[in-house]
Amino acid sequence: MTSTASTDGVRAGRRVRADGQRSRRAILEAATQLATLEGLDRLSIGDLAADIGMSKSGLYAHFRSKEELQLATIDAAEVLFDEVVVGPVRGAEPGIPSVIALADSFLDHLGARIFLGGCFFACASAEFQSKDGPVKERIAAFDRRWRARFDEHLEIAKAAGDLPMDEDNDQLFFELDAYLLYAHAAFAFRGDPKVLERAADAVRHRVGVKG
Amino acid sequence: MTSTASTDGVRAGRRVRADGQRSRRAILEAATQLATLEGLDRLSIGDLAADIGMSKSGLYAHFRSKEELQLATIDAAEVLFDEVVVGPVRGAEPGIPSVIALADSFLDHLGARIFLGGCFFACASAEFQSKDGPVKERIAAFDRRWRARFDEHLEIAKAAGDLPMDEDNDQLFFELDAYLLYAHAAFAFRGDPKVLERAADAVRHRVGVKG
Repeated sequence: MTSTASTDGVRAGRRVRADGQRSRRAILEAATQLATLEGLDRLSIGDLAADIGMSKSGLYAHFRSKEELQLATIDAAEVLFDEVVVGPVRGAEPGIPSVIALADSFLDHLGARIFLGGCFFACASAEFQSKDGPVKERIAAFDRRWRARFDEHLEIAKAAGDLPMDEDNDQLFFELDAYLLYAHAAFAFRGDPKVLERAADAVRHRVGVKG
Repeated sequence: MTSTASTDGVRAGRRVRADGQRSRRAILEAATQLATLEGLDRLSIGDLAADIGMSKSGLYAHFRSKEELQLATIDAAEVLFDEVVVGPVRGAEPGIPSVIALADSFLDHLGARIFLGGCFFACASAEFQSKDGPVKERIAAFDRRWRARFDEHLEIAKAAGDLPMDEDNDQLFFELDAYLLYAHAAFAFRGDPKVLERAADAVRHRVGVKG
């Protein structure tokens, strides 16, 4: 009896934890989408609870503050971004092919509306640009990782002679990332898929590859 | 006596109107700045009244709804944008020099922080991208006018042989405007003036002019 009761207790504990993880995941899935439509700063625990049909107190059990919810939402968005945008590109040939593959994969994730409002991080950056603090710092950390992926392959391309030796990689990244941000902004605002093609063409043209 | 009283009445009427115009202007000046920091959709009549030290009912005398206030704020922002960005460029030589002058003038207005949050219209576009309605349509109208200024001078440049005849001006505008939007976003987020130079270099490079 004692041993059975104890086993049941462990099982119940596991179930509670599994349920807790499931609801945490459900909350964060809803939050990543809501954030790109309404804004990360608009994520109120009350609205989100209403959106997923959970009580406010249930939601407070997962996130004690709005900031904690925002930071967890960004973490969840980066996991999804890495899975959808970065993951499929890992097998690409290093250098220029990887630069193009990263850009194309980013544009594909816009076209597929993985996040309803376009690029989660472009939306979040625009929203938090004037709001210093842990949320803005968390967005900047994503941006540094995104940029490092390009830097790595631009360096490889230069070493391989696929880019001019005097090419300024900071300038090149500025221009490539500009095409991607503009594609996000124009596609999110107007919904015209032509802008995704224009960005893909611009990237190819800039790194000297014919479209 | 009657005539004096009547003249006083006219004067008082004028004074009330002049005061009304002054307060309307003060409200809209505060609103254009607040909009680029907090968001156009965050413009509550209450917050704005507190910001400029006016009563809520005084503010309601000028704008009957939040949407009316938002639309008037965009109008005021476009007047300021035209004065600061477009006006000084009107004397530039048509064609490529005007394209570069427009871009430089835009970058200068970022550097001078004419609007505290960067480009008013980039902020507003990002905020309203998923919110169809009169405010989004008003922002799109600004964007069409902005684009038309470039189109005009890109056509002149092409006719003058300063751009290749097979240059796709839609693609070219996409890339030029991308540099400007990215400069806004990066400068607003990181405050690094180097991004303004990068955008100016990118524009020159793209239209075949040495920096």
